[in-house]
Amino acid sequence: MRAEIISIGTEIMLGEITDTNAAFIASQLPEYGIDLLWVSQLGDNPNRLRETFNRAWERSDIIFTTGGLGPTQDDLTREMVAGALGEEMYLDAEQEAHLRQMMESRGRTMPENNLKQAMLIPSSRAISNPRGTAPGWWVERDDKIFVVMPGPPSEMTRMWEHEVAPELEQRADGILVSRTLKTTGLGEGTVDEMLAPLLSSPNPSIGIYARRDGVHARISAKAPTREEAWHLIRPMEEEARAILGPSIWGVDEETLEAAIGRLLLERGLTLGAMESATGGAIADTITDVPGSSEYFKGSLVTYATQAKIAMGVPAEIVAMHGVISREVAEAMANATRERLETDLGIAVTGIAGNEEVEGQPPGTMHIALSDGEHVEYSHSQYYQGREAAKRRAALIALTLLRRYLMTADVRV
Amino acid sequence: MRAEIISIGTEIMLGEITDTNAAFIASQLPEYGIDLLWVSQLGDNPNRLRETFNRAWERSDIIFTTGGLGPTQDDLTREMVAGALGEEMYLDAEQEAHLRQMMESRGRTMPENNLKQAMLIPSSRAISNPRGTAPGWWVERDDKIFVVMPGPPSEMTRMWEHEVAPELEQRADGILVSRTLKTTGLGEGTVDEMLAPLLSSPNPSIGIYARRDGVHARISAKAPTREEAWHLIRPMEEEARAILGPSIWGVDEETLEAAIGRLLLERGLTLGAMESATGGAIADTITDVPGSSEYFKGSLVTYATQAKIAMGVPAEIVAMHGVISREVAEAMANATRERLETDLGIAVTGIAGNEEVEGQPPGTMHIALSDGEHVEYSHSQYYQGREAAKRRAALIALTLLRRYLMTADVRV
Repeated sequence: MRAEIISIGTEIMLGEITDTNAAFIASQLPEYGIDLLWVSQLGDNPNRLRETFNRAWERSDIIFTTGGLGPTQDDLTREMVAGALGEEMYLDAEQEAHLRQMMESRGRTMPENNLKQAMLIPSSRAISNPRGTAPGWWVERDDKIFVVMPGPPSEMTRMWEHEVAPELEQRADGILVSRTLKTTGLGEGTVDEMLAPLLSSPNPSIGIYARRDGVHARISAKAPTREEAWHLIRPMEEEARAILGPSIWGVDEETLEAAIGRLLLERGLTLGAMESATGGAIADTITDVPGSSEYFKGSLVTYATQAKIAMGVPAEIVAMHGVISREVAEAMANATRERLETDLGIAVTGIAGNEEVEGQPPGTMHIALSDGEHVEYSHSQYYQGREAAKRRAALIALTLLRRYLMTADVRV
Repeated sequence: MRAEIISIGTEIMLGEITDTNAAFIASQLPEYGIDLLWVSQLGDNPNRLRETFNRAWERSDIIFTTGGLGPTQDDLTREMVAGALGEEMYLDAEQEAHLRQMMESRGRTMPENNLKQAMLIPSSRAISNPRGTAPGWWVERDDKIFVVMPGPPSEMTRMWEHEVAPELEQRADGILVSRTLKTTGLGEGTVDEMLAPLLSSPNPSIGIYARRDGVHARISAKAPTREEAWHLIRPMEEEARAILGPSIWGVDEETLEAAIGRLLLERGLTLGAMESATGGAIADTITDVPGSSEYFKGSLVTYATQAKIAMGVPAEIVAMHGVISREVAEAMANATRERLETDLGIAVTGIAGNEEVEGQPPGTMHIALSDGEHVEYSHSQYYQGREAAKRRAALIALTLLRRYLMTADVRV
C-alpha cells in the first residue's frame, strides 16, 4: 500500500512552526505494512493544493492530510479534496447538530462560517474530534483512501489513536510488531556478536542500534494479526534476554528515569541529589516521571561554592582539591544523603561553560553516587555547548544510578 | 523568487527522525524576499528523486535540498541533480585533494567510495563543509539555482550561515529586516490600541503577536540593503519604545531567563530558588544562560515535605496551611534567601501530578518571590499533563521575577 502525507499550513511555509505531524504519522505506518513514499508541506493556496491533491489521488493508495480544516476562508482542505474527487460538498444535518451543541456547551453562539466544519462529500464520513470543532473525513472510493485530519497535534494524535489506527489495523494484510530491549554497559559490536545466532532469522528479525541511552536490540515480527506477531516475537525475546541477561535495563518506550524509578521502588530506596554544573537538570528529569515523589526527596542545586558549603560540603575539601574535583563530587553525594535523609545521594560538579576552570577543560564533569558505605564515581569530558554539557552530565549521572540499582540487590 | 525545499532521507520516511532542516530553511527565506511554495520529503529512491527533482527544476527558481550526500550507494542526491540538469559528474582534483587531506588528518585511510563526495558537475561549485566530509553544491544555470546541502543539521546550519546566506543576500533585490520588542503586563488588544498610530505604515510595518512569554511587537522593513532597512526601522522602534516604555523587557531572540540575568547583574542582586512542583525546572532554565553563576547561587529542590522543613520552612506553617499553599510558598522564598544568602528568593509549591492534593486540583501552583522586605505572590491553575504543568509554573515564576526586577530600581 503506497502512502502519501500532505501537511497544510502557511505557518509551516514561513518557518513559524515545524511540521511534527508528518513524522508522527510516518512512525506509525510501518506497523500496518504501509509504505510511505511521499511527504509534502503546502500553504493554504488553492492552485498548489489542487495540483498536489490531484497528483496524490493518482499515484497513492492512501493519503493522509493534516491542517486546513478551520472555519475561515483560508482553510481550503475540504474544498480541495472534494475537487480532487470531483464530488460536491453538502451540509450534513447530524454534523451540524453536533457542532451547534458543542459551541453551545462552550457558551458561544456559532458563527455561520463554522458551518463549513459540518460539511461532507458523498464518499466521506466524519471522524470525530473531541478536542476541537473540526471533524476529520474518512474518504474511501475506487479502492483508495483519503484521511483528512486537523492540524493541531493534540487533536490529530487523539484522532489517530482512537479512530484512524483501528481502521488501518482492520484493513492491514499484516501487522508489524516490535519489542525493543535496551541495554547498558555493552558496545554495539559486542551486542552484535552476542546475538549473532539470532541475526539471520527473517521473521521475527532482530536489529541492533546504538542510541544515546545505550545499545538497543529491536525484535520485529510481521503476521496477519497482532496476536500472531507477538507469538513470533516471544521465543526470540526469551532467547535474547537469556543472552543479554542483566545488561537489559528497560523495554520499548521506557526511559532511563522511569527505569530508575521502578528500580528504586522495587528496592525500597530513596534518592536525593546535589547538583552544580547540571543546574537542576537531574531533578527536572527525575520528576518528569509520575509518582517520583514516592522515592525522590529533592536536589540541592548548589551552583555557588558557598552554597555547597552551606549544604554540608566541608570547606577543607573544597580548599584542598578545588571545587571541580572527584573529592567534592563525593562529598556532595554524601552531604545530600544526610541533609535530605535519603538512602542514596547522587552529585555532579563540573564545567558547563565554555572556559577552563581550575585548569580543567570545558565540559569536565565529576559525578558521584553514595549509599553511605560505598561511593561510585564517573568522570567525563565532552563539550558541545552549555546545554549539551548539562544534558550529557545528567545522562551519565542517571546511567551511573541505573547501573548501581541493577546490582544493588547484592548489596542491600 | 519561487523556492522549493526537498529533504532527503529514508529515516525521515520511517518516522525515525523529524525533518527540522526544512523548517530552519523556511524561517530564513523571508529575509531575502524568497517565497517558499513547496516543501517535500523523500527516501533515497532513484525514481521518486528523479521525478521530484525534474518537477522542481521546472517550476521553481531556487531549490534547496538536504541529505543524501553520504559516501554509500544509497546516497543519490548528486547523481539525481546531475540527471535533472542533464549534466555529467566528474571527479574534481581540488575536492579530491581536500577530502584525502581531511581523512588523513582524522587518521583514516580514505575508502574509494568516498570519492563520490569529491565530484562536481559543470554548473556546480563546491560549498565547503568544515563539519563533515560532504561538501555542498551551488548550482547555477538558466537563471535558476540549486543549493545542495548535507542532511546532519549541525553541518547544514553551519553551511547555511557561512556560505549560503551571504550568496542569497548578494542576489536578493531586497532585504527584509525585523526588530521584535517583547512586552509584559499588557494584553494583545491593549498593545494594538497603543500602537494604533503606527499600524498603517506599510514599510516599515508593525505587527502584534501574542506569544507564550508576552505580547511581541515586530517591526519589519524591506530595503535594497541591510543598512537601509535598519535606517527605516530605527525611527519606528524609537516611537514604539516611547509608547510601550517600561513594558518592554527584551528584544529579538532574548529569552526571559537571559533578560532576568541581565537585570540581576545591572541591579547587583543575587538569586536563589526553592522548588517543589517544578522539580528543578526553574534552576535548569536559569543556568542555561552563560554567566549565570554570577548571580544565581542555587535552588533547593525540596520535593518531599520533610526536605522543605529541613531547608528551613517552619513545620507549623506546613501543618497549619497545608504544603500546597500560599503561606508555604512564601516561607520557601524566605527560607532559600536565608540558606543560600541571596538578595532574592523565588519559590514554587504545587501539584504537577494528575490528582487532587489537599483538596486542590491538578496544576495548582503557588509562586512567591521574596526580597526580605516584600513578598510578591502569584497563583495559577492549569493542567495539560505533568511536564506542561512544570514548564508553565517555571514560566510564571520567571515572569514574576522579571516584573519585579523591572521595577526594582524603585525599591533597592
